Amino acid sequence: MSTEPIEVGRVASGVEGLDPVTGGGLPHRRLTLVSGTAGSGKTLLAVQFLAAGILDHDEPGVFVTFEERPSEIARNFRSLGWDVERWERDGAWTFVDASPDLEPETVVSGDYDLSSLVLRVRHAVQRSGAARVAIDSTGALVDQFGNAQVARRALFQIGTELQRLGVTAVMTAERPDDYGAVTRFGFEEFVADNVVILRNALADEKRRRTVEVLKLRGGAHLKGEHLFTIRPGRGMIVVPQEVLSFGYASSHQR
Amino acid sequence: MSTEPIEVGRVASGVEGLDPVTGGGLPHRRLTLVSGTAGSGKTLLAVQFLAAGILDHDEPGVFVTFEERPSEIARNFRSLGWDVERWERDGAWTFVDASPDLEPETVVSGDYDLSSLVLRVRHAVQRSGAARVAIDSTGALVDQFGNAQVARRALFQIGTELQRLGVTAVMTAERPDDYGAVTRFGFEEFVADNVVILRNALADEKRRRTVEVLKLRGGAHLKGEHLFTIRPGRGMIVVPQEVLSFGYASSHQR
Amino acid sequence: MSTEPIEVGRVASGVEGLDPVTGGGLPHRRLTLVSGTAGSGKTLLAVQFLAAGILDHDEPGVFVTFEERPSEIARNFRSLGWDVERWERDGAWTFVDASPDLEPETVVSGDYDLSSLVLRVRHAVQRSGAARVAIDSTGALVDQFGNAQVARRALFQIGTELQRLGVTAVMTAERPDDYGAVTRFGFEEFVADNVVILRNALADEKRRRTVEVLKLRGGAHLKGEHLFTIRPGRGMIVVPQEVLSFGYASSHQR
Amino acid sequence: MSTEPIEVGRVASGVEGLDPVTGGGLPHRRLTLVSGTAGSGKTLLAVQFLAAGILDHDEPGVFVTFEERPSEIARNFRSLGWDVERWERDGAWTFVDASPDLEPETVVSGDYDLSSLVLRVRHAVQRSGAARVAIDSTGALVDQFGNAQVARRALFQIGTELQRLGVTAVMTAERPDDYGAVTRFGFEEFVADNVVILRNALADEKRRRTVEVLKLRGGAHLKGEHLFTIRPGRGMIVVPQEVLSFGYASSHQR
Amino acid sequence: MSTEPIEVGRVASGVEGLDPVTGGGLPHRRLTLVSGTAGSGKTLLAVQFLAAGILDHDEPGVFVTFEERPSEIARNFRSLGWDVERWERDGAWTFVDASPDLEPETVVSGDYDLSSLVLRVRHAVQRSGAARVAIDSTGALVDQFGNAQVARRALFQIGTELQRLGVTAVMTAERPDDYGAVTRFGFEEFVADNVVILRNALADEKRRRTVEVLKLRGGAHLKGEHLFTIRPGRGMIVVPQEVLSFGYASSHQR
Amino acid sequence: MSTEPIEVGRVASGVEGLDPVTGGGLPHRRLTLVSGTAGSGKTLLAVQFLAAGILDHDEPGVFVTFEERPSEIARNFRSLGWDVERWERDGAWTFVDASPDLEPETVVSGDYDLSSLVLRVRHAVQRSGAARVAIDSTGALVDQFGNAQVARRALFQIGTELQRLGVTAVMTAERPDDYGAVTRFGFEEFVADNVVILRNALADEKRRRTVEVLKLRGGAHLKGEHLFTIRPGRGMIVVPQEVLSFGYASSHQR
Ligand SMILES: Nc1ncnc2c1ncn2[C@@H]1O[C@H](COP(=O)(O)OP(=O)(O)OP(=O)(O)O)[C@@H](O)[C@H]1O
Ligand SMILES: Nc1ncnc2c1ncn2[C@@H]1O[C@H](COP(=O)(O)OP(=O)(O)OP(=O)(O)O)[C@@H](O)[C@H]1O
Ligand SMILES: Nc1ncnc2c1ncn2[C@@H]1O[C@H](COP(=O)(O)OP(=O)(O)OP(=O)(O)O)[C@@H](O)[C@H]1O
Ligand SMILES: Nc1ncnc2c1ncn2[C@@H]1O[C@H](COP(=O)(O)OP(=O)(O)OP(=O)(O)O)[C@@H](O)[C@H]1O
Ligand SMILES: Nc1ncnc2c1ncn2[C@@H]1O[C@H](COP(=O)(O)OP(=O)(O)OP(=O)(O)O)[C@@H](O)[C@H]1O
Ligand SMILES: Nc1ncnc2c1ncn2[C@@H]1O[C@H](COP(=O)(O)OP(=O)(O)OP(=O)(O)O)[C@@H](O)[C@H]1O
Ligand SMILES: [Mg+2]
Ligand SMILES: [Mg+2]
Ligand SMILES: [Mg+2]
Ligand SMILES: [Mg+2]
Ligand SMILES: [Mg+2]
Ligand SMILES: [Mg+2]
Repeated sequence: MSTEPIEVGRVASGVEGLDPVTGGGLPHRRLTLVSGTAGSGKTLLAVQFLAAGILDHDEPGVFVTFEERPSEIARNFRSLGWDVERWERDGAWTFVDASPDLEPETVVSGDYDLSSLVLRVRHAVQRSGAARVAIDSTGALVDQFGNAQVARRALFQIGTELQRLGVTAVMTAERPDDYGAVTRFGFEEFVADNVVILRNALADEKRRRTVEVLKLRGGAHLKGEHLFTIRPGRGMIVVPQEVLSFGYASSHQR
Repeated sequence: MSTEPIEVGRVASGVEGLDPVTGGGLPHRRLTLVSGTAGSGKTLLAVQFLAAGILDHDEPGVFVTFEERPSEIARNFRSLGWDVERWERDGAWTFVDASPDLEPETVVSGDYDLSSLVLRVRHAVQRSGAARVAIDSTGALVDQFGNAQVARRALFQIGTELQRLGVTAVMTAERPDDYGAVTRFGFEEFVADNVVILRNALADEKRRRTVEVLKLRGGAHLKGEHLFTIRPGRGMIVVPQEVLSFGYASSHQR
Repeated sequence: MSTEPIEVGRVASGVEGLDPVTGGGLPHRRLTLVSGTAGSGKTLLAVQFLAAGILDHDEPGVFVTFEERPSEIARNFRSLGWDVERWERDGAWTFVDASPDLEPETVVSGDYDLSSLVLRVRHAVQRSGAARVAIDSTGALVDQFGNAQVARRALFQIGTELQRLGVTAVMTAERPDDYGAVTRFGFEEFVADNVVILRNALADEKRRRTVEVLKLRGGAHLKGEHLFTIRPGRGMIVVPQEVLSFGYASSHQR
Repeated sequence: MSTEPIEVGRVASGVEGLDPVTGGGLPHRRLTLVSGTAGSGKTLLAVQFLAAGILDHDEPGVFVTFEERPSEIARNFRSLGWDVERWERDGAWTFVDASPDLEPETVVSGDYDLSSLVLRVRHAVQRSGAARVAIDSTGALVDQFGNAQVARRALFQIGTELQRLGVTAVMTAERPDDYGAVTRFGFEEFVADNVVILRNALADEKRRRTVEVLKLRGGAHLKGEHLFTIRPGRGMIVVPQEVLSFGYASSHQR
Repeated sequence: MSTEPIEVGRVASGVEGLDPVTGGGLPHRRLTLVSGTAGSGKTLLAVQFLAAGILDHDEPGVFVTFEERPSEIARNFRSLGWDVERWERDGAWTFVDASPDLEPETVVSGDYDLSSLVLRVRHAVQRSGAARVAIDSTGALVDQFGNAQVARRALFQIGTELQRLGVTAVMTAERPDDYGAVTRFGFEEFVADNVVILRNALADEKRRRTVEVLKLRGGAHLKGEHLFTIRPGRGMIVVPQEVLSFGYASSHQR
Repeated sequence: MSTEPIEVGRVASGVEGLDPVTGGGLPHRRLTLVSGTAGSGKTLLAVQFLAAGILDHDEPGVFVTFEERPSEIARNFRSLGWDVERWERDGAWTFVDASPDLEPETVVSGDYDLSSLVLRVRHAVQRSGAARVAIDSTGALVDQFGNAQVARRALFQIGTELQRLGVTAVMTAERPDDYGAVTRFGFEEFVADNVVILRNALADEKRRRTVEVLKLRGGAHLKGEHLFTIRPGRGMIVVPQEVLSFGYASSHQR
C-alpha cells in the first residue's frame, strides 16, 4: 500500500534559476545524467549540487571522482565560494577517489573491478549519512570497459545501487560535440532517469553556455535551451527563457 | 478456410488523437515498434496503451521492463492519473522485470538467455489473461547481443512468440537522433509489423514533440508528423494535422 | 545460333503506371531488386507482381518470405483486393517460409544453410510451374551472413538459380534512408540486373511516395522519380512524370 | 635506348565524343578504371570499347565478367547494335567467366585464387590475339578479399599482368554515390593509370548522365563533367562541354 | 589546513596577448592540452612557453619530443629568436627524446613502455630543477597504444606524475579538422585540466590562425576565438578580441 | 657548437611559382609530404623536383616508386620535356622499384619488410650521391601495414633514415577528397616536417587545380590556396595569389 506523494519528489539543485527549468528541482532519490562537452560545466554543476545540500539543507554529500584529484577539485571551486576542504574535515563532504591505479604494471589490465567501486560508494554514503552523490564522470568509467554491453550493464548497476542507498545523484557524461548524439557512447541517456545537457557552443567565433533538460522521467519540466553564466561566489546561474517571455504558469508545458 | 475480417483489426491505443493517425488504432495481435530518442515519450505511450486496455476494455496487460524498475514506472505515471500499483494488486497489470542480473560476477557474461525471457512473458500473459503487452526497450535488449545477426533473430523470435500468444504489443526502440536512421541498430524497423516514431526535436533552441506512423503493414494510416503534448491526468494527446486542415475522409490517403 | 528477340523481353508488372516507367515492364527472366526504407512499399510491389501474374496471365507465383509469416502477408493484402489464401489453395500461389528457426538453442548458430533455401525455392517453382518469384527480403537474408564477401556470393548464387529456373523475379532490399546509399550493405544493387527504388521521404513534415528505376540492364526506361499512391482494391498506382509533361515518345531517353 | 613516341599513345574508345574528352583516346597499353554507381553505364562503356576494337580496328577483345553471365551481356547489348555472339563465334570476342563457383560447399571459403584468373586471362589474350581487355568489375573482385592490403596488391598484380600482355584495358569499379569518394574501397583510383568517372546523379527528381576524366597519367585531357546519352544503335554519346563553349584548342588545358 | 591562494595560480605563457585570453596565464602546476591540426602552431606554443620560463623567470624547462628530433626543434625556432641549443648547454633546457626505437625488428612490437618514459621525464625535471614541461605530442604517444582504455589511463598517469613533480605543463594533441571533435581520439580533452585550441582554418581559399581557451578548470578566461600571427623574433602574438571591443574588465565573463 | 644558418635552408623546387609560396623553396634536408587526391599532380611534383635537381643544380636524385613502373613514369613525363631514361643512363636518376612482389603465393603475406626498403634506398642514395629523394606514395606503403601504430612508426623511421642520409625529400600521400582530412590515414601530416596539399576540386562541373602549403616547420610561407596549371615542356606552374594582389613583401605573413 503506497503512501508516496503523487509526483516524483524534487530536490533543490542549488543552481539559481535551474529549478524552474527542471520543474521544481532534481528528482528525489533518482539519478540525473549531466552530459556535456569538455569544459561545459559538468563538474561545476555536480559540485554546486553537493554544496547546496550542505549549505542549505544540512545534507552531507559524496563526490566520486575518476580523473580529477580531490585536492584539485577542492581548489578549483574555492574561488566560487565553496570551501570543500572544510566540509571534508566536518564530515559533510566525502571524496571517493576512483582514479585508476597508476602502477605501470597494471596499466594494461582490461578488467575493471566494479564491485569494489560500488562497495566504496556504499560505505561512504552510509558512514557520512549522505543524501546527495555526484559521480564525475561516466566517460572515464565507461572507457574502462571493453564493450557497450558490459558498460551499459555496469551503469545500470551503479544506478540501482544509488537507488537502494536512497540518495539523489548526478552523474556526468562526456560528449564530443555540443549538438548531435547526446552522449559519447550512445546508451547512457537511455539508462539514466533524467538527462540534463550543458552546452558551450561556438557560433560566430563566440561561445554561448546553455542548459537543457532533455528528459525527466515522471515529471514536468521546461523544454529547450536556457542561457547560463558562471559568476564568482555564486557559480552557475540560469536564466529560464520561457519564464521571461510568457510567465511561469503557462510555460509548464511538456 | 479463413473467416477473418477484410482489414487488419485495430485496437484503441488509449492516446487521444492517435487512433485517427494510425488509421483506426494499433493493429490487433500485431507488434508495433515505438522508436524515439531519450525522453521522447516511448515509455509513456507504452504505459498509456496498457492503461487504456485496463480502463476502457477491461483487458489485462503485461509490461516487460529492462532498465526501469517496476516501482519507478508505477510512480512516474501516477501523476498522469494512472494507478499502476492498484492494477498490479488487482491482477490487471503484470510487470516482468527483465533487468540484468546485478551480481558483479555475472557482469562480464556475454550470453543472454532469451528463452528464459520468452518463458516469463508467456507465463505472465497466460496467467493474467493479458491482451496487451509492452516491451521497454529493445535497446537494452539488443545491447545484450554481440552482433546484429543474433539480435535480429532474437527480435524476430520475440515477435513470433507474441503473435502465438495472440496479444497486441508495443515495443520501444532507441535512436540517437530525431532524424536520420529510424533505430539505433538499423534492422528493428524492418522486423516489426508497424513503426511509430516519437520525436522531441530541437529547433531554434526549443523542443517540439511529434508522432508519426512510419509504416503499418496491411492498413491505411495518416502520413507525416503530428504534434502532441503531455498533460497531467490525460497523458499523451495528439493533434492529427491533416484532419484539421482537410477533414477526416480525404486524409486517408496512403 | 541465337533466336532470341532483339531487346530483353518484358513482363507486365501489374502496377498501374509502372510499366511505362520501366520501359515496358520488368525484364523477363531477370532479377529486379526493389530497394526501400521500412514501409516504402516493397512487399506491396512484390505481392502485386505475383498477383498480376495470377490474375492477368494465369502464371503461378512463388513468394519467399523471411520475417513476415505467410498468413500475415495474406491478410495484409486482402484489403487491397487480393485473396492470396484462395490462390494458395488453388496452387497458383506458393509460399516458401524461410523464417529463421526459432528454437532458442539455435539462435546463436552463425551458419546459414543457403543450399537448403535454394532447394526449397527450386522445388516450389517446379512443382507449381511458377513463372514469377518474389523474395522478401535480402536484408533478413544478408544479416544471416558474417561478412560481405560470403553474402555477395550468396546473393549471386540465388540470382543464378532463379535464372536457371527461367522465372522473372523481384527481390526486396533494405536501406536506412530514402536518399544516399542505395542498399544497406552497398553491393546488392551491383549484383542485381535491375534496380527499382521506392521512397517514402519526409519533407516539411509530410511523406511523399515515389518510385524510380535506377538501372535496367539491356533496356530503355524512364529516368528520375515518379509519384505513386496506394489505393484499396488497386494497390500501387504510379503517375509517370515525364509522360505527363512531355508526352510518351520523347521521354524514352536514357 | 627508347624509340617510343613522345606522348603516351592513344586508342580510339569507340564512344562518340569521348576521345576529345580524354585528349585523344584511352591510353595505349594502359589500364583505365571506369568508376560509377549502379546503372551508370560502366558495362556499356566496357562493351563499346571492345566493340570499337572489333568493328573499327579489327582488334579482337577479351571480356572478363564477374557477376553478369556472358549470354546476358550479349543479349543486353544486342539492341544497341552489337552482335557479341557472332563476334564470339568469329573469335573476335572472348569471354572469361570469372563468376564465383556456385557449389554451396565452397560459398564460405575466403581464399580467392587470383593466379587462376590471371592464367585464364593470359590464355584468352594470347589465343585470340586480343588488343583490348575489359574487366567488369573490381567491386565483385575486391569483395573476394578479406582486407585492403591484399586486395590492393591483387589489383596491382592484374594491372601488371595486363601491361605485360601489351593490351589496352578498362576495368570497372563500384561506388555507392555519384559524388564523394571515387571508389568503394578508396584505393583503386590510386592504383590505376587512368580514371574515368560515370555519373547518373539525381537532381530535382531527375537523373543526369555525365562522364569525367579524373586523371590520365602522362597525358592531357579535358577537365570536368560532360553530358552523355545512350542511343539505340549507337550506345554512349558524349557531348564535350568545353569544345562547345570555347573551341577545341583552348580547352586542352590541364 | 590549507594556505593556498583563493584562485588557481597562473603562470605567464610568454605569448604576447595570450595571458588575458586565459584569464591571467596558464594554470600553475597544472596540465594544459594544446590541440590543433597539423601546422596550427602547437610546437611553437610549447617552445615559446619554455622559452618564456627561461628568459623571463629563470625557470628551467624540459621538452619531451616524440617525433621531431631535438636538433630539428632547436633549428626550427632559432629564426624566431630562441637559442635552444645554448639553453641546453646552460642546463636551462633539457630534451627528452621519446622517439620510437628505430631498429626494424622492434617495429612490430605493440607494447609501449610507459614507465620508462615517466622515469626519464622525472629524472630530467629533478636534475634540471625544471618548473615547466612540454610534451609534444600525445598523438604520437596514443598511437602507440592499442585501445582507448589503456591510452586514457596512460595519459592520466602522465598528468598525475607531472603534478607530483610540481611543474606547469603543456601537452600537444592532434586533431584532423579545425572544427568538430576537439582531439583525434576524443578523450584527451576530458583528461586534461585545461584545453587550448589552435586553429589554422581555411575559408575562401585563405587560412586564418586563431587561439581559443576551451576550458580552464578552476578559473575565469575569455571565451571564443582570438586571432594570432607568427612574427620573427616574437613568435606567436595573440589579439584578444573582446578586449578590443568591450574593454578588459567587462570581458571577464565566463 | 652550431654553425648552421639562422633559418631552415631552402631548396629550389623546380616548380615555377612554387618557391615564393613555400617561402623560398622546400626545406633543405627535410621531408615534405605532398598530399592529394588521385590525379592531383603528386607524382608530377615529385618528378619535377628531382628533374630540377638534375637540370639546375647537377644533383642526382632517387625516385622510390610503389605502384607505377619506372618505365611508365619515364614515359609519362617525357612529353613534359624530361628525359628520365637518359638521366638514368647517366647515373643522375635512380629508380628504386618498391612494387610488391607479384608471385601469387606471396600475395597473402601480411608482413612488410621495411628494413629491406630502407637498405635499398640508402644504397641508391650513397651509390649515386643523390641530394634529392622522392617516395611515391605512402598510401601504397601504409596499406602494407595492418594498423596505424606500426605504420606511423614505419613512416617515422623512413623520415629519420632520409635525414641521416642528408637528402631533401618529398613523399606523396593519398587522400580521398579534396577537402576534409589531410591524408587517408590521418597521421602522416603530423609525422612529416612539411605538408603541401594539391587539389583538383570539382565546382560547378569544372575542376580547378590548386597548391597549398599547409605547414612548414621552422619557416615562413604563404598561406592559402594558389592556382596552378600543367603545361607541356614546363610541367606544373603556380600562380601565387597574394603576390599578385598585395606585392611580395607584405605577403610573407604567417
Ligand atoms: N508525470 C509526468 N508529468 C509530466 N510530464 C511527464 C511525466 N512523465 C514524463 N513526462 C514527460 O515525458 C518525457 C518522456 O517520458 P518517457 O519516460 O515516456 O520517455 P522515453 O522515451 O521512454 O524516454 P527513455 O528513453 O528515457 O526511456 C519526460 O522527459 C517528461 O518530459
Ligand atoms: N492494406 C493496405 N491498405 C492501405 N495501405 C496499405 C495497406 N498495406 C500497406 N499499406 C501501406 O503501405 C505501406 C508499406 O507496405 P509494405 O509492407 O509493402 O512496405 P515494405 O516496404 O515492405 O515495408 P517493410 O520494410 O516493413 O517490409 C504501409 O506502411 C501502409 O502505409
Ligand atoms: N540496350 C539498352 N538500350 C537502352 N538503354 C540501355 C541499354 N542497356 C543499358 N541501358 C541503359 O544503361 C544503363 C546502365 O547500363 P550498364 O549495365 O552499362 O550500367 P553499369 O554501370 O554497368 O551498371 P551495373 O553496376 O549494374 O553493372 C541501364 O540502366 C539503362 O538505363
Ligand atoms: N604528360 C602530361 N601532359 C599533360 N598533362 C599531364 C601529363 N601528365 C600528367 N598530366 C596531368 O596531370 C595529372 C596528374 O598527374 P600525376 O600522375 O602527377 O597525378 P598523381 O597525383 O600522382 O595521381 P595518382 O594518385 O594517380 O598517382 C594527370 O591526370 C593529367 O591531368
Ligand atoms: N573558479 C572558477 N571561476 C570562474 N570560472 C570557472 C571556475 N571554474 C570553472 N570555471 C569555468 O567553468 C568551465 C567548466 O568547468 P567544469 O570543470 O565544471 O567543466 P566540465 O564540464 O566538468 O569539464 P571537464 O570535461 O573538463 O571535466 C571552465 O572551463 C571555466 O570556463
Ligand atoms: N621559424 C618560423 N618562422 C616563421 N613561421 C614559422 C616558423 N616556424 C613555424 N612557423 C609557422 O608555424 C607553423 C606551425 O608551426 P608548428 O611546428 O608549431 O606547428 P604544429 O602545430 O606543431 O604542427 P605539427 O602538427 O606538424 O607538429 C608552420 O607551419 C609555419 O607556418
Ligand atoms: Mg569535469
Ligand atoms: Mg522509456
Ligand atoms: Mg516488407
Ligand atoms: Mg555493369
Ligand atoms: Mg608540432
Ligand atoms: Mg602518382
